[in-house]
Formats: sequence, C-alpha cells, structure tokens
Amino acid sequence: MATERSRCGVTNTKAPASMYMDLSGPPVYRATTTAPVNIAVVKYWGKRDPKLNLATNPSLSVTLSQDDLRTLTTASCSAKYPKEDTLTLNGQPSDISGARTQACIRELRALREGLEKADPSLPKLAELPLRIVTENNFPTAAGLASSAAGFAALVRAIADLYKLPNDPTELSIIARQGSGSACRSLFGGYVAWRDGTQEDGLDSKAVEVAPASHWPQMRALILVASAAKKGVSSTSGMQQTVATSGLFKQRVAEVVPKHMATIEEAIAKRDFATFAEVTMRDSNSFHATCADTYPPIFYMNDTSRAAVRAVEQINEKAGKTVAAYTFDAGPNAVIYFLEEDAAAVVGSFYSILSATEGWKDEAKSLSSDIALDETIAQILKAGVSRVIQTGVGEGPVKSNEHLVEINGEAIIR
Amino acid sequence: MATERSRCGVTNTKAPASMYMDLSGPPVYRATTTAPVNIAVVKYWGKRDPKLNLATNPSLSVTLSQDDLRTLTTASCSAKYPKEDTLTLNGQPSDISGARTQACIRELRALREGLEKADPSLPKLAELPLRIVTENNFPTAAGLASSAAGFAALVRAIADLYKLPNDPTELSIIARQGSGSACRSLFGGYVAWRDGTQEDGLDSKAVEVAPASHWPQMRALILVASAAKKGVSSTSGMQQTVATSGLFKQRVAEVVPKHMATIEEAIAKRDFATFAEVTMRDSNSFHATCADTYPPIFYMNDTSRAAVRAVEQINEKAGKTVAAYTFDAGPNAVIYFLEEDAAAVVGSFYSILSATEGWKDEAKSLSSDIALDETIAQILKAGVSRVIQTGVGEGPVKSNEHLVEINGEAIIR
Repeated sequence: MATERSRCGVTNTKAPASMYMDLSGPPVYRATTTAPVNIAVVKYWGKRDPKLNLATNPSLSVTLSQDDLRTLTTASCSAKYPKEDTLTLNGQPSDISGARTQACIRELRALREGLEKADPSLPKLAELPLRIVTENNFPTAAGLASSAAGFAALVRAIADLYKLPNDPTELSIIARQGSGSACRSLFGGYVAWRDGTQEDGLDSKAVEVAPASHWPQMRALILVASAAKKGVSSTSGMQQTVATSGLFKQRVAEVVPKHMATIEEAIAKRDFATFAEVTMRDSNSFHATCADTYPPIFYMNDTSRAAVRAVEQINEKAGKTVAAYTFDAGPNAVIYFLEEDAAAVVGSFYSILSATEGWKDEAKSLSSDIALDETIAQILKAGVSRVIQTGVGEGPVKSNEHLVEINGEAIIR
Repeated sequence: MATERSRCGVTNTKAPASMYMDLSGPPVYRATTTAPVNIAVVKYWGKRDPKLNLATNPSLSVTLSQDDLRTLTTASCSAKYPKEDTLTLNGQPSDISGARTQACIRELRALREGLEKADPSLPKLAELPLRIVTENNFPTAAGLASSAAGFAALVRAIADLYKLPNDPTELSIIARQGSGSACRSLFGGYVAWRDGTQEDGLDSKAVEVAPASHWPQMRALILVASAAKKGVSSTSGMQQTVATSGLFKQRVAEVVPKHMATIEEAIAKRDFATFAEVTMRDSNSFHATCADTYPPIFYMNDTSRAAVRAVEQINEKAGKTVAAYTFDAGPNAVIYFLEEDAAAVVGSFYSILSATEGWKDEAKSLSSDIALDETIAQILKAGVSRVIQTGVGEGPVKSNEHLVEINGEAIIR
C-alpha cells in the first residue's frame, strides 16, 4: 500500500480506494459540500473595515445554478494528519495561512470547541488538523466570483464537519471575513448582504430576500471576455476608490440605498423591467466610481461596452426590457433575462457567437429576429472567448462526492 | 468676367483676383480672424439652461497654439449679396439658420445697430446680408473642439467687421450661446468660464486666468484615436447625464469647485504636479459621470485607456509628474507637459509611434530611456491614427488672409 500512496498523502487513483486502502489507525472525519457563485445586481464595493470585511454599503445578488458554476469542497480532520492544517485548491497545494482563511477556521473551531465543552461525549475534532480539498468547475479569478463560492464552501464544509447548528445567516458572518461577497453564497435565490452598523460586524450578514423558487424563471448568459487574472484585485481596488473617488460617497449615501429598496420590491413583484433597470444602473454606477478612482481603475473593455450596446439593441428591438447587463470587477458580461425571453436574448447572441464555445444544445434551437449592429457583432466575435448559460439556483448542498478518501488521502483529478 | 465667376458667387481661382475682377457696384466690407482650439482641464459638462448654454459648473481650459489648430473665418457684408446671410464651412455651404448661430448673429447685429444709431455717419452694415466663410486646419467633430474655435472665430470676425468696441469677455457671452466652450476660445493662455448665477446668463462668461506668457512652457501632445464623428454629441450627452446620473450632482456640488480652486492656484504658481493631478482627476470624474449616465455614454475606448496607462508609466519612471492626460467627448488623448520634459514625454511616445503621421522634426531628436509596457505600446500603435504636437497659445488674431475676395467672392481652396 505504501507504494500506492504518495508521501504527501495524495493519491491519483480513481478506483474505489476503500477496496484496498489501509483503514487502520485514527479515524478520518469528513464532510463535503458544494457552494454557488453569486453575481451582484447591486454591487459591493468599498470596506468600512478592511480587516472584518465590513462593507460601506449593502448589496444584493442572484445565486447562480451549481449545475454550471460551483465549488466542491471537502473538509476533513484526523489525528493521522500532519499537525498543520492544509488546503488543496484545484489540485495544487494552496496557502492556508492567509489572515482571511485563518479567521474563518479560527471562528469555526471556536464554535466546535463550544459544542465539545457543552457535550464531553463529542469527539474532539476542534483540536485535530484539517485537510481541506477544493475544486472549481470554472476558471479562478476571471471575475467569476470564485472567491465567493470558495469561502462559502470552505465555511459550509467545516461547519458540516463540525456539525455546527448555526444557520446560514450566522455562518455568513464568518464567510464574510474570508471574502465579503462569500456571505451571499450561503443562500440560493435572491440574497441581500445587510452591511450593518456595528463595529464588531455581527450585524453585517447575508439574508435570503427570496428563494430561487419565488422567481425560478431568472436566467443568466455570461459572456467571458477574458479568462485572464484581473489587473487590479477587487480588494485593493475598492479601497483605492474609497480613498480617492470624489463621487463614491454619493454612491454610498444615495445611489445604493435607492437601488436596494427598488430592486427588493421588484423581486417581490417579479417585475423584470425594474429589476433590469436597477441592475444596469448599479453596474454603471459601480464602474463609474472605478473610473473616478485615482489612478483610474478600468475593468470593462471595448468588448464589455459592445455587450452593453448589444443589450440596449435587444431591448429596443424587443420593444420592452428583456435583458439586463451587469459587470463585476472584470470585463465579463453577465446578462440576466427571463426564460420566456430566451429566444430574443440567447438567440440574438447565439446568432453572432455560434462559433464560441460553451453553448448548450438548447441555444441552437433558439432563433431571434433581432439583428445586432455589425460593428458590435464583430467586436463581440473577436472578444468573447466562451459563453456560460445558467440561471438562478440553490445555495450550498451536501455532497458524497468527497475529495478526501475515507483513509484521508486527498483526491486530485 | 462672368465666365470667370460661378453663379453662387464662389471662385476657385488662386490668382490675385483684383487684377481682373469687377469691382464696380456696392462696396464689400470684410474682416478676417483666426481663433484657437481650447482643451479644458476642468471640464464643462451639463447645462442649467440649454437655450442660453448656461453651464452647471465652471470650467478652465488651456488655449492651444494656432500654428497647429485654428479656425480661419472671414465675415463680410455687402449690398451686392443676395438677401440671405450665408455660411461656407470648409468649402461646403453650411446651415446658418440654426438657433445657436442665429443667436450670435442677432446679438452682434444689435450691437452694430446701437453704434449706427449713436453715430449716423457710420455705414449701415447691420442691415446688409452677411457672407461668412470659414475653414479649419484640422478634422471637424473628432473631439478636437472644432465648434469652440468655430463660434469664437465667427463672433470675433463679425465683431471686427462691425468694429464693435466690446472686449473679449463681453463677446464671450455671445460666443457661449453658439457653443458653450467657444467662450473660452476668445482668450489665449489659461482661461476660466465663470458659470454665473443669473437667469439671463450675462454673468456666464470667460475670463483670462493667466496669459500664455505667464507659463509659456506648457506643451500638449494629442493622440488622435479616431477622426470619426462622435457617437453621442456632447450637447445631447451632457443633458442625459444631468437627467440620469446619480453621481453627477456630487461632481457639480463638490468635485468641480475644489478642482477649480486648486488648479487656478497651481497655474498662478506654475506648479505642474498639482496642475497635472487636477487635470487627470477631473477628466476621470467627467468620464465617470458619462459612464453613470443611463444609458451609459462611453467616449474613451481601449486606446484611450492605454494612453492613460502610458502616462502613468512615464510619470512613475520619471520619478515625478511630468505628464497629464485629459479626454474630451471623444477617444483622443490630450497630454499636457512642460517643454523641459519633452524628451521624457514626447520621446517615450515617439519611440513607439514613430510610424504614425503628424510628428514634428523636433520629435525625432528627442530620445527617452523610458520604455512603455509592450501591451500598451501595441494598443497605441494599432489605435492612434495621428499625433498633433502643440502647446499653449494666443487668442484670436486679425488676419489679412481673407476668405472673401475684395469683390465679395468666397474663396474655396
């Protein structure tokens, strides 16, 4: 068996390891979860407390289906592991010593210790080293909110491993310390991050505004304009904006509160036209404050702007608002629409981007009589590297697709 | 002779017409002037009164040398002309009936009538038809402020034709009604447009902050990113911003007043670093409010953004601020710098754009040890169609290069 196992406790076998692996020695505890990506329609940008990730303003997002974008994470602990906690991300050993990751682990361990103190019969998991293995099914740091899904999965998996009774909102306070927007990935559907006012951040947490089942027709088409890493990380970028933009405080004081109130009502009423207008206006406002940062931050490029014009043309030619664009801290366009308008929206983009990878078979059957401007079509053809068709989805889900063998070996694939 | 003359009173001959032309009949009165382009460093964007062109905020510009960019205009009047006033722009009959042009002509005629009433011995020019012929030495409507130079030249030429005693600030109130920024082109050097508060706009006028001679070392390098007409005209664009941007009122209330005070002091002290920072911040703020407009207005493109990064790299590698970018309602970059830093600034751009047209011989002798990032260099090489090297210059100048023959024929060349 020793020959079967690499010295770092990693195996590449895909065969059912339990058939022949060494199961003697201390037990291995494990829990596995998936967590979704969320794409904000009212953006989080700016921290009032960078250490605790306390936002300068509330935000609201749509959780996207994990069939298309998800992080899978197994958290395990065992006395047989080396003393140090370890993290493997997409098959590569990853730094677990970062302050944000440590903050999450520390808080979760403290909660487990509380349970163990209250019930001495519980196994002493809090004192065991953690082995965390995680993988995304989408490119990391391409402006696809991988850190949100990543920290949500990390927190959810460890909370499950430790059998913590805490609800998702309580866990969101922990996940938020890993990555602000991660707090919103602990829920499915339509999720608000209430920024809160307390210095300790205990009131800065995510809540479900509406479950996916309330408005399940919401779809998203993502035009990936670049899979490259971002130029300016959002963490440093947003603090430059807070420090230097003369327009930012207006966004925080007036623009965002209005957008939050309006879009929550639009979601309650399933009013897509209003949802779409706020979504587009808030994305514009966010990128405007980036452009007003000194030195200016540019996340959108000419391809992004062509996507904006394409959405405007689709809405104009459809005679009503059927699509809404939004852009995170990168050039990718996320276009929200309702299932009933798939032909007009997906069909219009498919007609010019049919050669681009990522389309689902359903797209091929959708035809639109909307012809996009030729210049816009050319820019999109040249700049969009792939598309992702998805929609509103559920929050984290327990999984048996463990990334750690029952004998404690990390599975790399 | 009749065969020599086209029926619309236009001749193409370049030979001294007076040698053989018919000089009988009513006299032709004429006055010719040149007027400069100005490029704002604190931007005019937004009207509180669209009819009178009253701005929502003050602005400040640098007048550019007429050796490189100028409008030449001859205003003439004669009883031998057809009854209708006419305007010829760059060789083409142009519409003179527009409300803005008519407002300027009406006010100038009224001032002339006042003179004629006061002194009956004066010829009755106010009642004679006008023939105005004008030409630019640069592409029209490419974001090169052609309307500013055009209306400044129109007003200055007619004022000279009518021998009006009014000073440039008084004339700026008239030119402003033609095109807001035109009021600043009636002066050379460093010019402020005081937005004023009166409803009649009589206090919304241009004043000289400092003559060109106060800080003659100011240079400008223009990277022409597109000579095409703009997508969104600034007149309609700025009113969309006023109506829809949630961030715009913050620019008007706080950002611009601070920029005006700071840059006027910087000009007084010849403090380039401060002048440059305000210039770049104000351009960023202006384009941010455009991006925050609904639907968003995009004037800058990927070439413009590469120019921003190039300027940042030049300043960083020079170890001090030697260059400042600013963008009007178009993608062209205007880069201000001081003569003493020409090697670092012009040299850096010449090293990557030497194949681009428009360089003066002096550029070829400038070498910079600053190497711009290769990606940025490639974008600029692909996107910059020509360069214009110029600098701070004087205001309108009387000229004998008349565009109307002494017999009243328009000269087209």
